[in-house]
Amino acid sequence: MKPLTSSAIKLSAEGLFVLDQTQLPHLEVWTWSADPSTMVEMIRALKVRGAPLIGVAAALQLGLLAEKNPARAEFEKALMDLRESRPTAVNLMNAIDRLRAAYEKNGISAVPLEAQKICEEDIALCENMSKNGASVVGAKENILTHCNTGGLATAGLGTALGAIIQAHRDGKSVHVYVDETRPLLQGARLTTYELEKNKIPFTLICDNMAGFLMQKGKVDRVLLGADRIARNGDFANKVGTYSLAVLAKHHRIPFHVVAPRTTIDRGCSTGAAIPIEERQAGEVRSHWAPQQCAVWNPAFDVTPGELVTSWIFDHGVFNQAQIQSGEWLGE
Amino acid sequence: MKPLTSSAIKLSAEGLFVLDQTQLPHLEVWTWSADPSTMVEMIRALKVRGAPLIGVAAALQLGLLAEKNPARAEFEKALMDLRESRPTAVNLMNAIDRLRAAYEKNGISAVPLEAQKICEEDIALCENMSKNGASVVGAKENILTHCNTGGLATAGLGTALGAIIQAHRDGKSVHVYVDETRPLLQGARLTTYELEKNKIPFTLICDNMAGFLMQKGKVDRVLLGADRIARNGDFANKVGTYSLAVLAKHHRIPFHVVAPRTTIDRGCSTGAAIPIEERQAGEVRSHWAPQQCAVWNPAFDVTPGELVTSWIFDHGVFNQAQIQSGEWLGE
Repeated sequence: MKPLTSSAIKLSAEGLFVLDQTQLPHLEVWTWSADPSTMVEMIRALKVRGAPLIGVAAALQLGLLAEKNPARAEFEKALMDLRESRPTAVNLMNAIDRLRAAYEKNGISAVPLEAQKICEEDIALCENMSKNGASVVGAKENILTHCNTGGLATAGLGTALGAIIQAHRDGKSVHVYVDETRPLLQGARLTTYELEKNKIPFTLICDNMAGFLMQKGKVDRVLLGADRIARNGDFANKVGTYSLAVLAKHHRIPFHVVAPRTTIDRGCSTGAAIPIEERQAGEVRSHWAPQQCAVWNPAFDVTPGELVTSWIFDHGVFNQAQIQSGEWLGE
Repeated sequence: MKPLTSSAIKLSAEGLFVLDQTQLPHLEVWTWSADPSTMVEMIRALKVRGAPLIGVAAALQLGLLAEKNPARAEFEKALMDLRESRPTAVNLMNAIDRLRAAYEKNGISAVPLEAQKICEEDIALCENMSKNGASVVGAKENILTHCNTGGLATAGLGTALGAIIQAHRDGKSVHVYVDETRPLLQGARLTTYELEKNKIPFTLICDNMAGFLMQKGKVDRVLLGADRIARNGDFANKVGTYSLAVLAKHHRIPFHVVAPRTTIDRGCSTGAAIPIEERQAGEVRSHWAPQQCAVWNPAFDVTPGELVTSWIFDHGVFNQAQIQSGEWLGE
């Protein structure tokens, strides 16, 4: 496969490396992913994360394995293990299913090419999404975002954060309110890191301050990503998204989901069918809460489509009526 | 003054001691407060916190100073410094103003008695509030609470958490969802600590999970405290309260404020007049965010009275109509 360097992933003659996102923003450590089982561990530990990126990373890892012409059983086990490494983001499953289809149709030699195509497509999807997203942003806006949806979450510029970066590059005066995004602080650690790199002004807040910020009229727009979008426009995204959607509705603030078409789950009719990953209690307890106490730690939540102002995809910006008509699915 | 031992404060022949709440739940360290300036520092650093408790702690400290028959200038400086140690909770100002009035009317020897009265009254207010609060709780409920409002926030049983503890003591089957309450984690550190001591089952969540929990139908009621209540029922409380109020309204979940009459600011006509303390950026950044990044860190937010189901005071439970009529003010 061709060499690749993105914000979060590198493929070279030396192998596949991911920027360990658990150590950001303070340390930039590139970790070698020797094989699919290493990648599974890194995805589970969120060293590599972001719905589009985990699809790309898994695909590249399988492309490398395919180049070694593995036994059928070994390859199929790797496909399955990676597909199951995290349950909510559908991009991962969509990527794996494409590789499996290529494998079954044209044999193992077709896999590296398909993996590379998935990666290149993600970069192109980001570019189109970012342009579409930037088009809804006004000349001077305060934008609230949640979690991390930039170059660390994709192979390209990003989804929601890509749109914000694109708006900034287009000369718009953008200031970002960054939700810290408990428990794993992807906002406080990763979005701040990317905004600093892009010289975009921002202010960090705790998740529970977003409502007060909206009450004060400080938020013009909410832009965030998705991990899986159902056919009716309901979507799963990082936990806290649903609260922001309700708050945005209450304050009549435009609320947009920015995602590539690879985030659509055509087999999922409503958000109720999206499996939500629950993660370890220790992520919430950290070192401060009683060490045996009960915790509820869903990594994602589900937002009903009725709370969304528009869905921004690589192939267009769709409003409620267009989502309800199914026009956006292009079937 | 008479000796006193509460969950968070001790007065004995050796002096005034506070349980350092920044070290809970892992360490129980009682710290001596030698004089008013020490108490000012401890209040600012949140070693002693909770709207009713800081009023009581400041009063006892001034009572001890008064027993030493200080010069007028020294006493007045102590009154003023303590009154200004935190700007939002009005209980502190109400307590100081009572001491000042007693001093001006009957001289320095009247101060210790008044301080002791403030403390004893707070214990009695807690008892009445807790009973009134418990009366709205059903036989089997999941209650969501925010921040810490128990024995660590008052001289007695607490406000909202006092009501929960009382409901549990009354034999009701209560399970509590505890918002961790970023940035200083009073829920994760202090409410969990008190619930464990009282053997009340609970589940810890991140603040941004409350909406999803409500969407799933897991929350029967929200009970939380207040730092200042305006004449129209608007109130300031720990940041995040307003978001919960909007979310509760959206899900038609009863939302109650539990507070003593000392939290009412009769000079404040609406919530817009309540000063909101903004604290240091480092509380939000902690060790994970970029160390120079911009932060917005309001310690409190303001919830409009229209989002409140009922206000639970020591002197009764009041609904919207009663608040609007001014009946609750007893003027």
